[in-house]
Amino acid sequence: MFDYNAAFEKQVEQIKAEGRYRNFVGLQREAGNFPMAFWGTLKKQVVMWCINDYLGMSQHPKVIESAAQAILNNGVGSGGTRNIGGNNRAIVELEQEIADLHHKEEALVFTSGYVSNDASLTTLSKIMPDLIYFSDESNHASMIAGLRNSRAEKHIYRHLDLVHLEQLLKSVDINKPKMIVFESAYSMDGLISPIGEICELAKKYNAMTYIDEVHSVGLYGNRGAGIANMLGFEDKIDIIQGTLAKAYGVIGGYIAGKSSLIDAIRLTASGFIFTTSLPPAITDAARVSIRYLKDSSTERERHQSVISKVKKSLKMAGIQVLENQSHIIPIIIGDPELARKASQLLIEKHNIFVQHINFPTVPRGTERLRITPTPGHTQEMIVNLTNALVSVFEELGIKPKVIEAA
Amino acid sequence: MFDYNAAFEKQVEQIKAEGRYRNFVGLQREAGNFPMAFWGTLKKQVVMWCINDYLGMSQHPKVIESAAQAILNNGVGSGGTRNIGGNNRAIVELEQEIADLHHKEEALVFTSGYVSNDASLTTLSKIMPDLIYFSDESNHASMIAGLRNSRAEKHIYRHLDLVHLEQLLKSVDINKPKMIVFESAYSMDGLISPIGEICELAKKYNAMTYIDEVHSVGLYGNRGAGIANMLGFEDKIDIIQGTLAKAYGVIGGYIAGKSSLIDAIRLTASGFIFTTSLPPAITDAARVSIRYLKDSSTERERHQSVISKVKKSLKMAGIQVLENQSHIIPIIIGDPELARKASQLLIEKHNIFVQHINFPTVPRGTERLRITPTPGHTQEMIVNLTNALVSVFEELGIKPKVIEAA
Ligand SMILES: Cc1ncc(COP(=O)(O)O)c(C=O)c1O
Ligand SMILES: Cc1ncc(COP(=O)(O)O)c(C=O)c1O
Repeated sequence: MFDYNAAFEKQVEQIKAEGRYRNFVGLQREAGNFPMAFWGTLKKQVVMWCINDYLGMSQHPKVIESAAQAILNNGVGSGGTRNIGGNNRAIVELEQEIADLHHKEEALVFTSGYVSNDASLTTLSKIMPDLIYFSDESNHASMIAGLRNSRAEKHIYRHLDLVHLEQLLKSVDINKPKMIVFESAYSMDGLISPIGEICELAKKYNAMTYIDEVHSVGLYGNRGAGIANMLGFEDKIDIIQGTLAKAYGVIGGYIAGKSSLIDAIRLTASGFIFTTSLPPAITDAARVSIRYLKDSSTERERHQSVISKVKKSLKMAGIQVLENQSHIIPIIIGDPELARKASQLLIEKHNIFVQHINFPTVPRGTERLRITPTPGHTQEMIVNLTNALVSVFEELGIKPKVIEAA
Repeated sequence: MFDYNAAFEKQVEQIKAEGRYRNFVGLQREAGNFPMAFWGTLKKQVVMWCINDYLGMSQHPKVIESAAQAILNNGVGSGGTRNIGGNNRAIVELEQEIADLHHKEEALVFTSGYVSNDASLTTLSKIMPDLIYFSDESNHASMIAGLRNSRAEKHIYRHLDLVHLEQLLKSVDINKPKMIVFESAYSMDGLISPIGEICELAKKYNAMTYIDEVHSVGLYGNRGAGIANMLGFEDKIDIIQGTLAKAYGVIGGYIAGKSSLIDAIRLTASGFIFTTSLPPAITDAARVSIRYLKDSSTERERHQSVISKVKKSLKMAGIQVLENQSHIIPIIIGDPELARKASQLLIEKHNIFVQHINFPTVPRGTERLRITPTPGHTQEMIVNLTNALVSVFEELGIKPKVIEAA
């Protein structure tokens, strides 16, 4: 007879044996004290150097006020799915705000960025049963899930490798529906896709383009519309996917595109239809955050300035980082246990929180520290981070690796 | 060359042709005014008779206060995934509250009930590659997604049909891992699973049990722990899945079970790992709502009393409903267009919102109105609902159908 407990225990043991058991670090953030947090039960203040609330918008007074006000006005939950009672002013206005942000006809909001990728990619192949996907090998787990769940034919191209992408595009019937799926800025290495060239290939081979701008929206482009917009290719992208949970500091995900496309997905996607819609307080806060970052560039400018300061400071201290054009600063440790220890020493000895990133989030052998500067980090914090990294790396005998950008 | 626009338009046209195009009804709810809402731009007040905020907890002063307070204290977004900065006191305490609710060792919170089903069922077959699922044919779309995405062998048993279930259980190797997946109260027909008998079959054939209590938690059992608890079978269920979005009035989903099982899923499930965690305000509000409904039975008692009044009133008026032991009152129309028209007349003429439910939410030919009484509905509202239904059915020539309960 099958022993269920043994199966679960074995799974956990195996993960432990691979050095990738996860104890979630407990952190308490306080509004008005960005980018600080209290750590665990020790109530020790630490500086967060890996937060994805990239601009601190989760604590922006306007965002807080809109969320708190909506809760007092409307209560917490939306009360139902979009179709059965959960459609309200706040979510409709949010979708309009997003469509305007990306200069697209319509937008559709999902409960998360993960769900928006998974559900949209799964559904697109229902709508076009012959659809063939072309997907960058480093695409996020949520896109991998969507492609897998779609069961569509898929071709995986080497990370950012357009020669490979073109070979693959060439290899299939030109008359079949095709979609190129990629990220604008890759979350774990911070590299930026050659969006213009990808759009040219898409045109040449009559493929659609699907871009994940999760790590770019709010941060790039003069209204925060992301990298495709900043580089002038927004109108060549068929589907822009984004999150409300990172630079916008709230939660939720979306896609934006042509009306007929959005409508077809809205009416077909199981992961959109059969789930309670986001609370009005969440959608109001997200709308206010997007609106604010459309009008204000201050945060983006200060963000860029802190990023260059951090990169410069690490370079001066001789710390090798993975070089890129984005706000994500990866330091490749290349060993799960050393990465874990570095993270532990940083928080215990230096009051600095940088989560180590191990498999399955990054490939084995590329375990890393991933540093994300924010407009809230001061010069003093930058100096402390640099000194702490030097000291910890020395203590552990770590020499950060160079990995080849594609 | 493939014409993408045509494909999307065709999909929309086809849905329209089947009479199942969805125009989401816009409703504005106001805290303190449950179960009322303002409809569309007309700003006309309507009574909601289909809300899944079953007890109005989304507007409970304690729930509102905890959410608003957490937003002022902590900001809106959590800032990261559970592993990278998004683990905090509120979500940990919520998981403890849920584990205690179901008398299980541990619980795990997901961004929605949909995601908790999809991610858990997908992952269980990763942990036990030979796993065979036995699933009730009426299970919710989120479970269907999980089973499909798991790619595990699966056997679908006729709705609530234990003879069929046993046949299927018997048909497979007794030594293989097996799991019976079912709902306690079915969302669209309100029928209740024979939980005790299912647990006996599970024991006889060494299968695990997975129950979706989405439409039961908060509503049944003396602490609101659901139907398995109320009937005394909680300890025989291996995995209890629930939502924070219906009776608890917030958003989010969860599973509860033995530590090793929860830990294995926590460390393996893509849909859990790779997404931003719920905001502290959401998890705090959910915890307060669960806690409140553990201590107070008033809402459940009043809920039951309103349910019997509604059922009685409809019966006296000669309106055929699908009979069941739960709080869900389905009236089977059996035609998508008539169902839509009934819903439209109810809101336009009678200020009553009852969303019509068509395919794909229910099987074709069983289109229905689904009425969900709440503790907030008064005797006057019940009388108005009954009269409105009589009048609308007369106007449209509708005679509600009897469909065979399994
Ligand atoms: C590239 C990418 N896409 C999608 C997601 C999912 O977004 P969300 O956190 O809103 O679910 C993430 C991270 O969480 C991501 O890094
Ligand atoms: C039976 C059942 N399970 C799961 C879900 C999904 O829960 P949630 O709305 O929290 O995603 C629903 C409805 O939405 C449901 O009816």
